[in-house]
Amino acid sequence: MSKNLLEHINNPADLRKLSLSELPDLARELREFIIDIVSVKEGHLGASLGVVELTIALHYVFDTPNDLLVWDVGHQAYGHKILTERRTKFDTNRQLGGISGFPKRSESVYDTFGVGHSSTSISAALGMAIASQLKGENRHHIAVIGDASIASGMAFEGLNHAGVTAANLLVILNDNAIGIDPTVGALKHYLTSVKEGKNPKQNNMIKSLNFDYSGPIDGHDLSKLISELERLKKTKGPKFLHIVTTKGKGLEQAEKDQVKYHAPGKFDAKTGEITQKSEAHLPMKFQDVFGLTLVELAKNNSKIIGITPAMPSGSSMKFMMDAFPDRAFDVGIAEQHAVTLSAGMATQGMVVFCNIYSTFLQRAYDQVIHDVALQNLPVIFCLDRAGLVGEDGATHHGVFDIAYLRCIPNMIIYAPKDELDLQNILYTASLGLPHPIAIRYPRGRGKYSNSEFRIQNLEFEKIEIGKANLLKNGTKTAVLSTGFIGNNVSLALENGNQPKTIAHYDFGFIKPLDEKLLHEIFSSFENIITIEDGTIKGGFGSAIVEFASENNYSKSIKVLGIPDVFIEHGTVEELQKICKIDVKSLENIFLNY
Amino acid sequence: MSKNLLEHINNPADLRKLSLSELPDLARELREFIIDIVSVKEGHLGASLGVVELTIALHYVFDTPNDLLVWDVGHQAYGHKILTERRTKFDTNRQLGGISGFPKRSESVYDTFGVGHSSTSISAALGMAIASQLKGENRHHIAVIGDASIASGMAFEGLNHAGVTAANLLVILNDNAIGIDPTVGALKHYLTSVKEGKNPKQNNMIKSLNFDYSGPIDGHDLSKLISELERLKKTKGPKFLHIVTTKGKGLEQAEKDQVKYHAPGKFDAKTGEITQKSEAHLPMKFQDVFGLTLVELAKNNSKIIGITPAMPSGSSMKFMMDAFPDRAFDVGIAEQHAVTLSAGMATQGMVVFCNIYSTFLQRAYDQVIHDVALQNLPVIFCLDRAGLVGEDGATHHGVFDIAYLRCIPNMIIYAPKDELDLQNILYTASLGLPHPIAIRYPRGRGKYSNSEFRIQNLEFEKIEIGKANLLKNGTKTAVLSTGFIGNNVSLALENGNQPKTIAHYDFGFIKPLDEKLLHEIFSSFENIITIEDGTIKGGFGSAIVEFASENNYSKSIKVLGIPDVFIEHGTVEELQKICKIDVKSLENIFLNY
Repeated sequence: MSKNLLEHINNPADLRKLSLSELPDLARELREFIIDIVSVKEGHLGASLGVVELTIALHYVFDTPNDLLVWDVGHQAYGHKILTERRTKFDTNRQLGGISGFPKRSESVYDTFGVGHSSTSISAALGMAIASQLKGENRHHIAVIGDASIASGMAFEGLNHAGVTAANLLVILNDNAIGIDPTVGALKHYLTSVKEGKNPKQNNMIKSLNFDYSGPIDGHDLSKLISELERLKKTKGPKFLHIVTTKGKGLEQAEKDQVKYHAPGKFDAKTGEITQKSEAHLPMKFQDVFGLTLVELAKNNSKIIGITPAMPSGSSMKFMMDAFPDRAFDVGIAEQHAVTLSAGMATQGMVVFCNIYSTFLQRAYDQVIHDVALQNLPVIFCLDRAGLVGEDGATHHGVFDIAYLRCIPNMIIYAPKDELDLQNILYTASLGLPHPIAIRYPRGRGKYSNSEFRIQNLEFEKIEIGKANLLKNGTKTAVLSTGFIGNNVSLALENGNQPKTIAHYDFGFIKPLDEKLLHEIFSSFENIITIEDGTIKGGFGSAIVEFASENNYSKSIKVLGIPDVFIEHGTVEELQKICKIDVKSLENIFLNY
Repeated sequence: MSKNLLEHINNPADLRKLSLSELPDLARELREFIIDIVSVKEGHLGASLGVVELTIALHYVFDTPNDLLVWDVGHQAYGHKILTERRTKFDTNRQLGGISGFPKRSESVYDTFGVGHSSTSISAALGMAIASQLKGENRHHIAVIGDASIASGMAFEGLNHAGVTAANLLVILNDNAIGIDPTVGALKHYLTSVKEGKNPKQNNMIKSLNFDYSGPIDGHDLSKLISELERLKKTKGPKFLHIVTTKGKGLEQAEKDQVKYHAPGKFDAKTGEITQKSEAHLPMKFQDVFGLTLVELAKNNSKIIGITPAMPSGSSMKFMMDAFPDRAFDVGIAEQHAVTLSAGMATQGMVVFCNIYSTFLQRAYDQVIHDVALQNLPVIFCLDRAGLVGEDGATHHGVFDIAYLRCIPNMIIYAPKDELDLQNILYTASLGLPHPIAIRYPRGRGKYSNSEFRIQNLEFEKIEIGKANLLKNGTKTAVLSTGFIGNNVSLALENGNQPKTIAHYDFGFIKPLDEKLLHEIFSSFENIITIEDGTIKGGFGSAIVEFASENNYSKSIKVLGIPDVFIEHGTVEELQKICKIDVKSLENIFLNY
């Protein structure tokens, strides 16, 4: 059991020097290496454990990086990173300045395509394959995609195109019956029947799209994998290999509780036991405030519906799914469908809470405009993980939503400053609004201790649409914040050194703006500072600047928010610091006012 | 052949009073009615002719509007509109203040869901079906979708969800092997094999998704249609009926040249002959400038690729497809795939021109951010039909792109003021840019006469990225326009009554802005006016206002553009007038400066 293979492998060329018989040992070492580091440094565990053998087989059989390998989503690419020149850096995974938790082109020539969002791999690899064909280059192009991701519409579009090309494309379906949560949908049932041998002609659906289908084979059997990949290497045109794996393979608890061990946090590398943290004293997560409040509201209103595209755990929609299984839907990785399904329900008077991470609503932007806002259907969008999300990095920050929603007629946009506001806006929206609303709130915990805030038995308060609020008096400078980032303003202003002349207003409503209050503010203060955890270009600050210009106010306005660059991974606090919206930066800025 | 059935049918209840044997006559009359009016008033022809029998059968068998019928896209819904209380208004189709060319909820209770963009019907109808189920209402829910639309990912997402529900949903595939252009992709080949009886077990693919599949049946055979719909009405759960129709059915030329007769303009109702217009003296369409210039560029650069999602005719990508079939791809209604395919090709050094209508790029917003801009891949987005598009109306105006693209880091956004600028920016982009670029240009004709502008043998000029240009001198007020709408400014300023003190600048580049020139402008002029054919919120004017605020300029800035409401259908000029950006409105505004 001594680790002596992995430490000599810096890149796939080293790997290819091993004999076939050594590969199972390498797989064991690689698995242990991943477990050892992730148990301490945290990150995504189960997905990478499940593809250890596939990762080794791919780099063993194919001539990477000359052959081009695209990992869908990228949660499963830890083994790939370790085998491709990043073993010694792997302990910096997801940390500021360290390697990314996802494949990333700027990080390595082996990372052929940056991923993070689902279902892009087939399109990207097909593009590469067509390019190689046109350039007369003899390369292989492989997309590895999971069974949750392949059910997303975009993957189907890629297959539908690839099937009529002669591109040298191999699509590998890594079928483990789970994404972050268990896979749903008719395709999943179909794949299950294929795996169980109930479908007599194997995978007709894929064959119907003109792919050379093979499988299903055991994705943990290295010799089977390698011989099949060798065979497919010699087959021309679009090919499809269906492999069956176990998410979390090799760590007993991770195999048993695949949802929890998707990204388990710190755990004991030997026993798999997750390190218990005492969290009772910590504020509740915004996600749980959402999920538990929705259940409370749904108890009194049978028209309330919850919809999540594949994030029941992450969004805490699971509470609604448990309490009202008939009225809560996990539709899979299908944001477009989720939004238009919501619109369809709303036409029939249902009160639909469609919960989508801010970054994933980008996938359904047209549906928000064309199916919801244009018809002015009062769908309630709950934009989880709005703002900087931290370690997931550039692919996952929810920083564009204010800008991309603000230009849409009929949309109400609201960012609660704390858990209470989130709860009350959910309540307010449940009563029926004349417009669609987007409620954006961050990943992670709020600000109230458990003794201060409880979900049950609360008297909900109705929030007046479009009303902003004074949080702190002042005379010279007005700080206008939207959402939870306003908490940083409050903390900064609590510092004794701060000028007493600074007022603080909470603009929960980014649209419509509280123009009455804005007129008062612009008439009373010399300076205005706006702050948001969204893009400066086109965001909340931009709305305030537009208001000032329209009304010919010529006050100085400083706009704080996310600058016009992609922000990488790190802790939320580190990233806020980069954007100068952390408490300390705000203190320094405020001192000049 | 006397018209005596249709004129007594105001709604489906009237229709249901007819005997089965009268329906073929009604079909003939309905077809003639559509031809008569569309031949004079213009509009979409072929799609509606193809579903005359289906339309009658659906309203005959089902209890509309209690049963809910959703037409995908809606090009085919003219017969539906005529049979549902809009026969006498049908001659106002697509005109300002008249009925919409697409189903629209605010227009009729029979229009259950507003459409225009493709592939939404399954999701919407499923949402309605689930709502009915929860409310205990015994209704039928029918989605009618074409073979081009069902190949789009969103439709697959809807099917994948519907297949695991017990919803009372009937999906009718109207298979005519063509959208606006002929359908492409592996699914189309598969459907063809099903129709030709080559697939022994009929449509396994749909059955695999757990639908009760029936068909294919002749969609022009009323009695077959009606008996099959009657049968399906009694079948529980998700059902799928595959019918085969001929686009343009009943008008010989329309059946023969289905692409041209999709929306033929004026034609002779008897002979079908399209009214010849002498267009030689008119300026060239921006679309043809794009398509023909791309061919010129591609002759000298083998790395140039053209991609269109199902719009080879509309975008004029057809020229590239004819000239370089290996390097031009119609990927079907698959905007998401189109963008990520482009990104994949760009990683391999290809120079990819991805042409998507502005309104349809909304379908691939996440792919633009996540797959292109984040990786800073120099994909060249050609945003056709940017701005107000006219008669297609609210679903099709390309007015959001400036706002939704401007917040994305790395993006260059350019709007050519005329045909020459379009040609030169295409040339400039083809030389290789360090960033992705979006080139937005309008639907329709430019400004140069044929003698002034030719595609071939032109010396292309390289455009300096980020540079704006003075078009007309002035002293007091500076008008900053972006794109072809600047032509309205020029025309307005040519009017002799106008103040001579107004300068006019062309800001082709919306991002990056020409900040050097802006400093000069803000230092020299008292008033600034910005004008764009995009949303005022977050658009070009907003960028100028942001610049002024950042740099503490306190000049008066008037922002002209699309107000914060959805703009309906009408001629472009009528709609520009509503938005106060037509020549006349500009003249009036300028008189105050």
